[in-house]
Amino acid sequence: MKTIDVCLSPELIHLYDLSNRTVVVVDILRATSCMVTAMAHGAESITPFADLRQCESMKTRGFITSGERDGKKVEGFDKGNSPFEYMGEEIRGMKIAFTTTNGTQAIEKSKDAREIIIGSFLNLSSVVKYLLLSEYSALIVCAGWKGRVNLEDSLFAGAVVEKLKDYLGPDCDAPLAARHLYNLAKNDLAGFLSESSHVKRLNRLNIHQDFEFCLTVDEYKVLPRIKNGKIVL
Amino acid sequence: MKTIDVCLSPELIHLYDLSNRTVVVVDILRATSCMVTAMAHGAESITPFADLRQCESMKTRGFITSGERDGKKVEGFDKGNSPFEYMGEEIRGMKIAFTTTNGTQAIEKSKDAREIIIGSFLNLSSVVKYLLLSEYSALIVCAGWKGRVNLEDSLFAGAVVEKLKDYLGPDCDAPLAARHLYNLAKNDLAGFLSESSHVKRLNRLNIHQDFEFCLTVDEYKVLPRIKNGKIVL
Repeated sequence: MKTIDVCLSPELIHLYDLSNRTVVVVDILRATSCMVTAMAHGAESITPFADLRQCESMKTRGFITSGERDGKKVEGFDKGNSPFEYMGEEIRGMKIAFTTTNGTQAIEKSKDAREIIIGSFLNLSSVVKYLLLSEYSALIVCAGWKGRVNLEDSLFAGAVVEKLKDYLGPDCDAPLAARHLYNLAKNDLAGFLSESSHVKRLNRLNIHQDFEFCLTVDEYKVLPRIKNGKIVL
Repeated sequence: MKTIDVCLSPELIHLYDLSNRTVVVVDILRATSCMVTAMAHGAESITPFADLRQCESMKTRGFITSGERDGKKVEGFDKGNSPFEYMGEEIRGMKIAFTTTNGTQAIEKSKDAREIIIGSFLNLSSVVKYLLLSEYSALIVCAGWKGRVNLEDSLFAGAVVEKLKDYLGPDCDAPLAARHLYNLAKNDLAGFLSESSHVKRLNRLNIHQDFEFCLTVDEYKVLPRIKNGKIVL
């Protein structure tokens, strides 16, 4: 029987056998929310980079560069890490090189997975449907914050576990913990997260609008996945 | 101001600066519950070992040896990992060499801490009082299961965070998550844990009695701590 597991931090990924799993990488605030938004608005591809300079160098090869560190846009990059930067008509056909503090690192660490898809609340139902139909067991990899567990990615993981509870059994306690947290929070995700460390960090950066948008469930129907190192539809 | 943080797995311990923290090591099922029980019954000291053979060799030096791997007593050791083995009158004055799958490994990984104390539900209030009076910030290190996050240790961490919430602010999201889980579970810890992977594992080993005992709050008033590599009072 297919199962579901949750890796609460990329620093725990060595504990999991990825070779027979569909991995869902999630960084709700805000990398994977941005990626889903960009793909929903017609971007051709997004190439994730763990390394900042390697990402920046893609500018000379026809890429739009997106760079975020510690919540802020990196100087010299075309775009930062707000989903509202990935919505305009100009996104259509763009090739984007993307690097962020946590999200693109989590993708890099998941590279041995059987397959990798990109999850966020914005495409929650698409993720759930895909995992239901996939022939592989699921592993949700939470990007966290610099290796530490965070609430928003755990809540997303819990939402997926909850929605698949009649079909995919939990492998260990992390999916159970995430599901409990999601059920506690689901009627007011924003309120529940208002005390979280990352939300406070974002609020200091005046990006409250991003925060609200990233918690919108099923804004888009896309399912970005990684093929040959690139995120495509 | 003093703060409180929770390291949900020993595999995340490198993310924390231990040098100015009082670390509480917790392995509810069952290493730290056994240690608290033994110290409450008059054991002279418990020396934790990460390595099985090193622990076993202490037999020739006047130690009682306690060894557990994968929930079972290791052959050739005097005792296993059930708190009921550490209650009799014969415990008084004993020097115990102790190795377990998770708990003693967590102690080993915490060795750079300013100070280390041993926590369990059995001595919850003693732990809370000590952290309240300590001059250092607190870090609860959950032993987990082979590096993975587990529910029972997370619940204990949440209990401590909850009881200190008016005094020690959370450093990041892990203490918030643990506190939410504890508040959800506190009226029926056993019921809440009945679906957890470790509890199922223990039930397969027919040690349900251990499970119930390890969830008893404040059975003992002792506060074991590590001094010169040994657990003493």
